[in-house]
Amino acid sequence: MQALAFEVLTPDEGVEPAMQARLCRLLARSAGHAGMAGGQAIDLASVGKPLAEEVLRDMHRRKTGALLQASVQMGAACGNVDDRAWRALSEFGAIIGLAFQVVDDILDVTQASDVLGKTAGKDQEQNKPTYVQLMGLEPARQYARHLHRQAHEVLEASGLTDTAALSMLADKVIDRQN
Amino acid sequence: MQALAFEVLTPDEGVEPAMQARLCRLLARSAGHAGMAGGQAIDLASVGKPLAEEVLRDMHRRKTGALLQASVQMGAACGNVDDRAWRALSEFGAIIGLAFQVVDDILDVTQASDVLGKTAGKDQEQNKPTYVQLMGLEPARQYARHLHRQAHEVLEASGLTDTAALSMLADKVIDRQN
Repeated sequence: MQALAFEVLTPDEGVEPAMQARLCRLLARSAGHAGMAGGQAIDLASVGKPLAEEVLRDMHRRKTGALLQASVQMGAACGNVDDRAWRALSEFGAIIGLAFQVVDDILDVTQASDVLGKTAGKDQEQNKPTYVQLMGLEPARQYARHLHRQAHEVLEASGLTDTAALSMLADKVIDRQN
Repeated sequence: MQALAFEVLTPDEGVEPAMQARLCRLLARSAGHAGMAGGQAIDLASVGKPLAEEVLRDMHRRKTGALLQASVQMGAACGNVDDRAWRALSEFGAIIGLAFQVVDDILDVTQASDVLGKTAGKDQEQNKPTYVQLMGLEPARQYARHLHRQAHEVLEASGLTDTAALSMLADKVIDRQN
């Protein structure tokens, strides 16, 4: 599946080679040791151990955040946006990546398994460090709302005129029930 | 590790973006469903089942051959070789990929585990289809020698002047004891 992603990014024709290279670079860095795979490694190594908030945030920034950020950046690259919009969209991607994880941790303790579509309470059972465990449930909810506002502020500061789809994406990440 | 390979192929500078895209394309196609991963899937699905030589060859062409061929092709791409040399080197890569597997199957039944560096006789024990099982030991050896000659012939037909390193690679693939 991972090879297929790079295959899709490198068609024989239809996409400028320089753009293909740029997209492959973004995907490779976000999927590998500095991104998803590295975050997953920290996650596996930390089961049953207490993690400082800083380490927990770094883990999620890599594990979930990096690929979500890269998805936004790849769209930005295809749109040839200016530097200001690039920075804003990169930050937007990082914020919704983090928000996704905070909401994931909240849903794990508040939702029933049948709504969640996976076993609820699994994090706690496996003694996985989560934002809820670290901050408590209500502060985690406040943090999610804070990230939600931040995401919208960053979009507004991007200088882009049509951010409706990204705005909905931010809403969806925060409001989801499963 | 796979993401790292694509990361190495897409540096910020030093390699033309068009070359980066070409190398990513070669690697992606050889690592994915049409290559290594697809071959491995056939392999896993065929344990304990008799395979026709054609299917066995297709499996190895993907599983081992595709990445070996891509390695040679990526060097050829970096060297900007002409069409004739490209075709010859592509064929060379496919031949040594196949030869590697035939020799692997031979060593599995002829070498002791300590020389092999892995458990000898494992293929037979797991009832995996191999060239030795399919052809018999001596015909498999003859086939390996045939592929060895073919590899050298293809190199000579490439029109390239310095093929010493690739020639040694072919020898190494056939003559290896482990």
